[in-house]
Amino acid sequence: MDALAVTSDGELAMLESASRQLTDSVRRLIDATIRTQVDPAIIAEVTEKIDCATEELSTALMPSSFGVQVTEDGRPMAWGNVMIGLRNAIAPPLVVNRGSDGDVWSDFTLGSAYEGPPGLVHGGVCAMVLDHVLGATAHKPGRAAFTGTLRIRFLRGTPLGELRAQARVDRVEGVKTFAVGQLTDACGVTVEADGVFIHPREQTPGG
Amino acid sequence: MDALAVTSDGELAMLESASRQLTDSVRRLIDATIRTQVDPAIIAEVTEKIDCATEELSTALMPSSFGVQVTEDGRPMAWGNVMIGLRNAIAPPLVVNRGSDGDVWSDFTLGSAYEGPPGLVHGGVCAMVLDHVLGATAHKPGRAAFTGTLRIRFLRGTPLGELRAQARVDRVEGVKTFAVGQLTDACGVTVEADGVFIHPREQTPGG
Repeated sequence: MDALAVTSDGELAMLESASRQLTDSVRRLIDATIRTQVDPAIIAEVTEKIDCATEELSTALMPSSFGVQVTEDGRPMAWGNVMIGLRNAIAPPLVVNRGSDGDVWSDFTLGSAYEGPPGLVHGGVCAMVLDHVLGATAHKPGRAAFTGTLRIRFLRGTPLGELRAQARVDRVEGVKTFAVGQLTDACGVTVEADGVFIHPREQTPGG
Repeated sequence: MDALAVTSDGELAMLESASRQLTDSVRRLIDATIRTQVDPAIIAEVTEKIDCATEELSTALMPSSFGVQVTEDGRPMAWGNVMIGLRNAIAPPLVVNRGSDGDVWSDFTLGSAYEGPPGLVHGGVCAMVLDHVLGATAHKPGRAAFTGTLRIRFLRGTPLGELRAQARVDRVEGVKTFAVGQLTDACGVTVEADGVFIHPREQTPGG
């Protein structure tokens, strides 16, 4: 592992724990930045503090994006991934569960930061989550899949709050996995999706 | 305007400017959180500082999401919107331009925080951006449009960096606008999309 300067499992565990707490903290900041009602003068003071914090983190910075780094024992770490990344404050994050018959699901909460129409999740966020969860049906360790096509049908507005995304494989044809899935709130399905996910010949880890 | 405590155009301008700077600052923090190589001890110190900053912003907080608030002279402010919101650090943000013939386009940059496969934009982020830009062809002042269906075809990986999304109306049938569009990098089209956007009978502003 080059980019992260850790040499043992214990060090990695400490870095993982500290990173997770920082990312959660940044998520709360994103939310407060949207919803704050304090005066511009206080906002300006807070901005200076955030800039100082960013400077401290930036004294040693990877030259490019996080990508997918690999632990010494070969486990991939997609810490920068916008949907699942441990270090990405944009990620809800999604935690993808896998059933025994190849189905996948994720329970997550979307707050103010994912809003489109008032009180509702932005349609594009619904599409983004479904792309990831449908794609996860095709992912295997060391065999990433890329989205070929994705079709989304919006049945009704998806309220901000607790949601579930789920998907299953409809069929596999060569390198193509055909997946179907849906987004649900407490009252049922809000968005349906189907997509084709492709295993490229040259494998790139992650996704 | 209830939620934001401003009473004049001058006050609104000051709040807008301070908010914009804070949001930019939070965007830089999101990026540094992903790419930092500092020790866990420094990460923990930074986390405490971020928590303090969030606390300061939270001394006065809207009870729910930002929604779409309206200025005294009737201009809608979608400051919390995940794609265009002035106060949303998840938003790249998109600035949507409109041509004289109803076409729309947006030039923007996606960095580390939007990554899926190493060095590439997450497919779901491409879908999210295209949903917004295609939808923008159907939006009129006071006439928001909701996504009905969206179809995305991924031609190749979209590299992180400078991108353009553009869309145009293919045809209008009653409350339905049929839009087509694409995402391009310096080398051409990476993702194509088409979608149906619907004006609901009961209008909700924004989206």
